[in-house]
Formats: sequence, structure tokens, C-alpha cells
Amino acid sequence: MPPLPVFRTKADLRQQVTAWRQDGQKIALVPTMGALHAGHLDLIRIAQSKADRVIASIFVNPTQFAPHEDLDRYPRQEAADRDALSTAGCDGLYAPTTHVMYPAGFDTSITPGRVAERLEGAFRPHFFGGVATVVTKLFLQALPDVAVFGEKDWQQLQVIKRMVIDLDLGVDIVAAPTRREVDGLALSSRNAYLSDAERAAAPVLKQVLDDLALKVRDEPAQLAMHMEAGIKRILSAGFRAVDYLEVCHAETLSPWQAGDPARILVAAWLGQTRLIDNCGLD
Amino acid sequence: MPPLPVFRTKADLRQQVTAWRQDGQKIALVPTMGALHAGHLDLIRIAQSKADRVIASIFVNPTQFAPHEDLDRYPRQEAADRDALSTAGCDGLYAPTTHVMYPAGFDTSITPGRVAERLEGAFRPHFFGGVATVVTKLFLQALPDVAVFGEKDWQQLQVIKRMVIDLDLGVDIVAAPTRREVDGLALSSRNAYLSDAERAAAPVLKQVLDDLALKVRDEPAQLAMHMEAGIKRILSAGFRAVDYLEVCHAETLSPWQAGDPARILVAAWLGQTRLIDNCGLD
Repeated sequence: MPPLPVFRTKADLRQQVTAWRQDGQKIALVPTMGALHAGHLDLIRIAQSKADRVIASIFVNPTQFAPHEDLDRYPRQEAADRDALSTAGCDGLYAPTTHVMYPAGFDTSITPGRVAERLEGAFRPHFFGGVATVVTKLFLQALPDVAVFGEKDWQQLQVIKRMVIDLDLGVDIVAAPTRREVDGLALSSRNAYLSDAERAAAPVLKQVLDDLALKVRDEPAQLAMHMEAGIKRILSAGFRAVDYLEVCHAETLSPWQAGDPARILVAAWLGQTRLIDNCGLD
Repeated sequence: MPPLPVFRTKADLRQQVTAWRQDGQKIALVPTMGALHAGHLDLIRIAQSKADRVIASIFVNPTQFAPHEDLDRYPRQEAADRDALSTAGCDGLYAPTTHVMYPAGFDTSITPGRVAERLEGAFRPHFFGGVATVVTKLFLQALPDVAVFGEKDWQQLQVIKRMVIDLDLGVDIVAAPTRREVDGLALSSRNAYLSDAERAAAPVLKQVLDDLALKVRDEPAQLAMHMEAGIKRILSAGFRAVDYLEVCHAETLSPWQAGDPARILVAAWLGQTRLIDNCGLD
């Protein structure tokens, strides 16, 4: 197994990408915040099926965390991540410092529109602006043909798709299905925060989503009632609060109306840990 | 003289640019709003000295005009512009429609930071956001190595330089000195709005700027007094109002402090026409 090339600067990254491109090779980027789990490795495999070379990036982006959020305690484990990427056959890791991404004087931001306003956007007002800006920078630094994002962050995926069209970024955005534990819990780097008791309660999110998917399909007129029951069930299972549980237009994230493609999204607090998940209607 | 190729869609533009790039040619973009004058043709000449192929774009960008501004009456003369570009040896014109630039659902914006807050940013709050967004789109559509902008729009030039660094756009920004009439009036497409009497009054802007440049250098402690006298002189010459007359840090556009690189900027109304100009200290 050849050692995984690690790029710390834009220039080093660009040199490798340019060489591959001059060889006629197609390049995929998999942007991550590290603390890689099997869900991330799915993204790498999908990227490998779409391109000749796959670069993963690891950057815990400070501009998408609010001051009270978990930037400082977000898990960081680059050595283990490098091993996992190497084993997965990834062709390179881009791991810039904060100074490389945001040098002194940095002062430009990208603001997504309505797709970013509700749900996560309402509870984390700076989140999608931070995501949009850093993803644009990663795209313009790495110049990939393709980038792969997980459906676990469904609204983020829609925000990025909209932005890529709007700014003519010319990157093909590929969505990867959510990887789950056997009991249904969506894999997330933040699951590492959970106590044993919290971990035991966590799968209720997926159970409620699945149940609601059937209800939305079969009894759309009773939606409000079913949502209320879903929230109660999540709280009864031991969650501290539900930020939202909503059926939305799957692409615009506006409130769902009969006939719209639907996505059900949830965000809820288990102790000090905020979990999100989502599902479609099939 | 070969006919000037005109591209109306991103795909047509990209096909030509890609072909040139595959031939190893370097590409320059000169973004304009049309109504071309000798100042624009200076930009084309400078672009020709920096690249093998020069594309001019003409797009009167609605998102940088406020509802009460002159979007509707802004001069449009594409046939004459095409002739001028052809004569200048320009290699192509990109003239997209509003629908090509902003298709249905468009909803992403780029927000410049502090460099865009004062001066024009204070009087035209949506202006630089509109400029930043459309220039990014033009860059990502045309993928130029170099782009040329006039110093006439000094703050715009600094906003674009900051944005290109911040978003890793990878375009070399070249500044072109302001082209002036013999009496000193800076060339502008908006000069076409001026009546004969207004045209006769207009050169006072440059006279005041030149005078202030000496004063800032020689008597910086008396700056406020000299600025006040400059505003009075502009109003006495027949201008209706002065939006601003300020000495600023030449790059950040923050208020000037002794030792900073300086730029003096002015915006003033002659009847219904708003003129801007600026100068350095040399």
C-alpha cells in the first residue's frame, strides 16, 4: 500500500491535481471534517466509481460553527483518518490549516438563499454561509470534476447543489446514501459524544422518520397530528429537545405541499449532543 | 478584419475558451457593461499585452442596480460596441442574456466585507454584492487567466482583488489607469447623460482631486478643512450634491491615516447624473 500523499497548501494540492489533469484523468473531491467513519468511506468508494483520482479533504471549518457550538471538542484524529483513507485507496489528502484557508484580511462570504433559511439555517444562522464559502474555496483550490456529499446532511446537499448551479462552479455533485448502524442510527462523527444510555435512545430518530414516511404517503391530511406524535415519541425516548421535525420539498426545503417531492428532516438534542437525520418517502 | 465571434451562452463561450486553452494560449477577460468608450479600449489593449486571446463581456447586470437607479436608461449599443471591439482586435464578445446569467431559481450571492462597506457601498448598498456575484460568475464561466478592470471604479477594483484572493478564484487582476477627456473629465458611459451645461461643469471633480492630492501630501493636518473647501468648490461649479469626498487607505478603503497608501475618492450629482472619480497622491 503506497503512503497517502498529504497536501498542506493550495500550491502543493494544485501541483498534483494539475499533473493528473494533464494526464487526462478525472478528479473527484470528498470534502470532510475528518473523524472519518464508514459513511465517509462510502463517499470515497462512490468517488472512485466516478473519477480516476480521489482527493479527500479534512478541514474543521471554524466559520460554520457558532461561538457556543462544539468547534473545540469536535473530534480530530488525523493519523487514524490517514490510515483509513490509505486503506480505502484514496489518492491524496488535502488537510490545510486555518491560516491557509483564511489568511489575514480574509473578508468575503457566500450567502445561500431560501434553501438555507429554514431547518438548520434557522437554528444555526451562520452554518450554511460558512459551508457555502468553504466548499467554494475547496472547489476552486482543488478544481475537481466531481464532488461527493452524504445525504445525511440533506439540506447541506441541496444548498451546495443550488450554489454550484448559481455560481457556475462546474462541479458534478454526487449524493451518497446515509450509512447506518444495524439499529438504524445514522453514522456521524458526533455519535462519539454519546453516553451508553444516549446511544441506546438514539435510534428512535430513524424509527420516527420511517413511520412518518408511511404516514405522509398514506394520510397526508393528518400530517400535523403525526408530526406532533413523532416529536412526543422522540422526547419520550430520552431526547432533551427537538429543534425540528418537518416534511419539506426535497430540493427547495420549503414546507411540503401534496405533490411535491418530499423529504422528512429531524434535528434533536440528546443531552449535549445534537443529532440530525432525514429520509425520503420510499 | 475577421468578424468578431459573439457568444450568447456559457456553453458556446466555454467551447471556444477550452479550445484556446488546449492550444496553450493564455486568456484574458475584460468585463464591461457595454456602451464602450476609449477607456474600455484601453482595457482591451492592456489585456492583449497580458494574454494571447482577449474576450470582452457585455452584461448590464440588474443585480447591481437599485430599483430607483438607471438600469433602464443605461446606454445599450451592442452593434457599435461589436464594431469597436472588432477594430481593437478583440478575439470574442461574450454577451449573455439576463436569463443565461440568472436562470429561474437563482438564489446565491457573494458578499464582500469591509472594503465594500463605505463610499459606494454606503450610498449603493446592493452594488458591490451584485458586482462580486456577477464577476465571480463571469470568471467561472470564462475561466480567464487574467482580467482587466479600470481604476476609474477604484473601490470596485479593490473589492474584486480582495474577493479573488479570498475565494481562490485564481485570476490575475490587472488595473488600467483612468482615461480622461482633455479637460480632465474621466471617461464614463454615464457622461452621455450630461447636458452641455453639465458637461462644462463636470471637470471640476478632477481639479478638486488634484488639488487635494497636493494638500494631503503637504498639509495632512488640515485635511478636514481642505475636504470641506473641495466640497464647496464642487457645489459652486453646479453640482447638485456630493455623496462623498474622502481620503482613504488605497486598498482597504478605510479612513486614511498618515502613513497609509492614500486614494482620494469622490461621488457627486450633476442634475440626475451621478459621477465618480478618484486619484492617488503622485
